[in-house]
Parts: sequence; C-alpha cells; structure tokens
Amino acid sequence: MKGYEELYAYFETNLKQQAFDNEPSELYAPIQYTLALGGKRIRPVLTLMACELFGGQIEKALPQAIAIELFHNFTLIHDDIMDDAPLRRGKKTVFKKWNNNIAVLSGDTLFALAYQYVQKTEVNILPITLSVFNKTAIEVCEGQQFDLNFETENDLSVDQYTEMIRLKTAVLFGASLKIGALIGGANNEDAESLYNFGQNIGLGFQLKDDLLDTFGDEKIFGKKTGVDIILNKKTFLYLKALEIADDETRNKLVDFYNNDSKQEEKFREVKAIFSRLKIDQLALEKIDEYCKMGKESLAKINLNTEKKESLLAVAHRMIDREK
Amino acid sequence: MKGYEELYAYFETNLKQQAFDNEPSELYAPIQYTLALGGKRIRPVLTLMACELFGGQIEKALPQAIAIELFHNFTLIHDDIMDDAPLRRGKKTVFKKWNNNIAVLSGDTLFALAYQYVQKTEVNILPITLSVFNKTAIEVCEGQQFDLNFETENDLSVDQYTEMIRLKTAVLFGASLKIGALIGGANNEDAESLYNFGQNIGLGFQLKDDLLDTFGDEKIFGKKTGVDIILNKKTFLYLKALEIADDETRNKLVDFYNNDSKQEEKFREVKAIFSRLKIDQLALEKIDEYCKMGKESLAKINLNTEKKESLLAVAHRMIDREK
Repeated sequence: MKGYEELYAYFETNLKQQAFDNEPSELYAPIQYTLALGGKRIRPVLTLMACELFGGQIEKALPQAIAIELFHNFTLIHDDIMDDAPLRRGKKTVFKKWNNNIAVLSGDTLFALAYQYVQKTEVNILPITLSVFNKTAIEVCEGQQFDLNFETENDLSVDQYTEMIRLKTAVLFGASLKIGALIGGANNEDAESLYNFGQNIGLGFQLKDDLLDTFGDEKIFGKKTGVDIILNKKTFLYLKALEIADDETRNKLVDFYNNDSKQEEKFREVKAIFSRLKIDQLALEKIDEYCKMGKESLAKINLNTEKKESLLAVAHRMIDREK
Repeated sequence: MKGYEELYAYFETNLKQQAFDNEPSELYAPIQYTLALGGKRIRPVLTLMACELFGGQIEKALPQAIAIELFHNFTLIHDDIMDDAPLRRGKKTVFKKWNNNIAVLSGDTLFALAYQYVQKTEVNILPITLSVFNKTAIEVCEGQQFDLNFETENDLSVDQYTEMIRLKTAVLFGASLKIGALIGGANNEDAESLYNFGQNIGLGFQLKDDLLDTFGDEKIFGKKTGVDIILNKKTFLYLKALEIADDETRNKLVDFYNNDSKQEEKFREVKAIFSRLKIDQLALEKIDEYCKMGKESLAKINLNTEKKESLLAVAHRMIDREK
C-alpha cells in the first residue's frame, strides 16, 4: 500500500498535467491560479488510497480524485466570496484578485469541469459514482448555508453545529473514500463503512481546526490564532462553553461575542474562559470519540489490518496535527 | 406527435410536483421562487419533443427535461448577479430579493440538483447524456464570460458576437434536443443533426431578441424597447452597423455608445441610424439564414416530414415571435 507522500506526489504531478488553459482566459486563469495554490490534497489522496485498499489500480481512480479536488476548489472560490475573505493560503482570493463576477463564473466552470472528470468512470459504476457525487455536492451547499445562517442565529446547540460541519466538511471526506472504494471494487457495504470512517474523521478534522484556531501554537500552526473568536464564530468551543458555563460566565461570553471590544483583549479573555471550563480538553475528548467511531467503521471491513495502515496514517495526520 | 401546448402543460405539471422544499429554507426558497417565475420552458419542451420524434415515451425524457430547465434557471440566477439586474420576468431577481451570497449558493445548489436529474437516465445512455450536459454547461459559462468581456472591448466583430451567443444561448437548445433524441433512441448521427438544428434555431432566437429590443412594438412586445442601446450592449445590430457604416456614421455610433446622453434621445438617434442602414432588414435576413441552415439539418434526419412538424412549429414560435 502506498503512503500519503507517494500518492500526494502522484496526484500533484497528474493534476499539473491538466492544463485548463482554454479561452476565455479571464475564466480559466482564476481556475489555474486556484489549483496552483496547492494545499494538502487530502481528499484526492483518500480516493486513491481507498481504491488501492480494495486492490484497484490508482490510475483508475485518478479522474475521480481530480473531480473531487476540482469540486473542493470550486467551493473555496465561492465560499471566499461569501465570507468576504481576502486571503487563501497566503495569496489573494479570486474575488479580491479579480472581481465578484469572475469568482462566481470561474467557480461555476470549475464545478462543471469536476463533472467532466466524474464522467470518466467505467459505465458500470458511473450511476453510483455520480449519485454519491451529486448527493455530496448538495449537502456541501446546505452546510455552507447553515454556516451563513449561524452568523445571525443566537440560540445554537452543539448538535446543530455538528450537523453543519458534517454537511459542510465531513461528507466530502466520506465521499472521497466511498468513490475510491467503489472504483477499487468494494461492495456497497464496505464502501459505506469507508464512507462512515471518512465522515467521522472529517468531523474530528474540523474540531481540530476549531481547537488549533484558539489553542494552537502560532510558531507551529503557521497562522495567527484567535481568528474565530475575533470574528465571533460559533464553533464547538464557544457552543460547548455556553452549554456548561454558569449564568455569569455565559453572559460574559455572549457579551464578548455581541459587542465590539479590543481584539487582543477579547481573544485573551475568551480563551481564558475556555481554559477555565476545560473546553480544550472536552474538544480533544470529542475528537477522540470521532476517531474511535471512525476506526470502528474501518474495522468492519474485511481486510487485514496491514492494508488499512496507510488510511489510518492519513486519519492521524488529519487529527493529530498541530498545524 | 404532441404539440408545444400539450408538452408545456405536461412539463409544468410535473415540474410543480418536484417540491424542492428541503432545509435550510434560506437555500431552497430562492430555488422555488425562481422556478415559479415561469417562462416559456422551450428547452425542456424541445427535449420531450425530440424524444417523441424518435418514438420514445416522453416520460422517459422527463428527468432530463427537468435537468435542463434547472440548469437554465441556475444560469439566470448567477447571470442576474453579474448583470446587476433588478428584475426578472417582472419580479425581483434572487440577489435583489435576498442577497448576493444566497444567490450564489442557491444557484450552485440548483446546478447540483440539475445533475441529480441527469443521473436518472438509463445506464446505457448515461455516459453520452452526461457528456453532452457537461460540455454544454462549460460552454454556457464560457459564453457568459465572453459577454462580460465584451462590455469593455471596443474592437469586436459580428463573428465574435455570433460565437458568444452560440456559446451563451444556442448550444443549450442544441443540447436539449440532442439529449431528448438520444433518450428516444436516435443514433448518434441523427442526434447530431438535431443538435445542429437546435443550435441554428438558437442563434436565430437570440438575433430576434436583439431585433425586438430595438424594433419591437412595445404594445405587443410587452417590455420597454431600447434597453440594449441604453445599456451600450454590443448586439448584432450595433456591430453590423459599425461594419457597414461610413466613417462619419460609425464615429457617431461609437460616440453614442461611449458618452452618456439622454436615454430617450440616444435610443431615437441610434435606432434612426440602424434604420437608415437597414440593419433590421439585415438582421431578418441573417435570422432567415440560420432558420434555413437549421431546417437543412433537420432534413438530414430520415423521418417523414409530418413527424417533424411539431419541432418546426416550435422553431417558428421562437423565431417569428413579436414578443
């Protein structure tokens, strides 16, 4: 079984060979720019890995791996418009570098291009592959809308938050694995188990993201911490804190999130509350829980443990990371 | 063979039965709103008609007809953002009624929903159907980008304009027919002939649109005329006029399009120039040409003339219209 590094290199080389240099250049330049920004390419690597897990040649899963990465990048271009985000991976976002119209339209094109790669599947598994892809695309849109809604909603539970990140983030990990498994020859039951593995790991991945944003070590994390708190993002940390805090602390937190105060002070104070409530510990426990559920799903698949090791290594890379 | 009215009613009834009432409602309400705005539904009717032309049951083509109408409505939602258009069919556009983010995201969702209907094709023709759909989706995006580019481009030819409207508008008519034909059991050659018929009729349809916008009778047209001229749209009329005008007239036209002048006066003057140059006549001749080429493609299909009559009637409805 090939490991992450080998598959990452294989995917990267092959993605670079897709030119996307058609006309009009105003449409394709932002697509080339976005794909060249890089990233960890975890989703397509998972697709290739799942294919190999069931004895398939990774070449057979390459078009679907590309489809998933294109789809993911389409969502980034459109999400950046909606979040009014100036930077992505340290570079200007498409709508800032070009404009809103070009970001909308190059995103749309990238979405359609993703389907051109979906199409390159053997006809016997095209219906199921397309169906997983469609369901996932719709769910990711729903997740993004819930995320937008949450900005102005004050009565949120941890469960609602979890459902939002499941849709917005976790299902795409599940789908990446399921599609790879189907191409590799898995039966539906095994493909479904792998989907559940991916979804749970995806939930853990997002909670880890929340945790690092507040508690990460900036030197290792490589990004500024405190962004979620400064932007009043209702993450797991915040919602869990509201759930377990006494009335006085809860009111203090709500105050911080509803009134403008000095960014540095706000971050320091809110983080101190989270620490006092041991929210970081609770988050780690929750992440462990997802990790465990993921592994249970993986255990259901009737393949020897050795074969599953590359997948477990990626899961740990997603969850144990400090950056 | 069923006619336009019968198929329109059949399609409309079935489209209404698709609820699209999922959660979050912020995402699905704009989709329901857009689909309820109505429209002529020419594209899905063409799909149903093409299916029947080759002896297929229209029920079999219904999901693809819905897919095409959803796709078309997705492009309308996003185009309205890009064109900053306040109204669509007399009602507020989605981005005006809600906001930019919701218009981007509900458009994306509609695009993904379209693919859920594409998916409902018999497996043996799914690859070709999906491939036509994908190619068309990408071309429509390219056409829209050319249209955006043309706003700031001063050295345009009629040929460049024609290529733009081919991509933005005509290919979807071709695809609507081709997909219907394939479902109905047409061979590739006949499906391609029908595609060419649709593309030519689509070009004629758009030129007629340009013509009516300037020369239509407001009482029959039902909309204000002169919008293209007031917005400096470089349509066939304008570009053809530049091509054949003497230097003095050309400079006058360019002046009108590059300087703000009173809307009413500008419309009157530019229309007078177009009339003097007989641009309306030239447009009608060009439309006739497309119509003729379309009919030649249709003639290549080995079916009796009677069977093709419903299709020809729709073509005439698209092209001979005064509104």
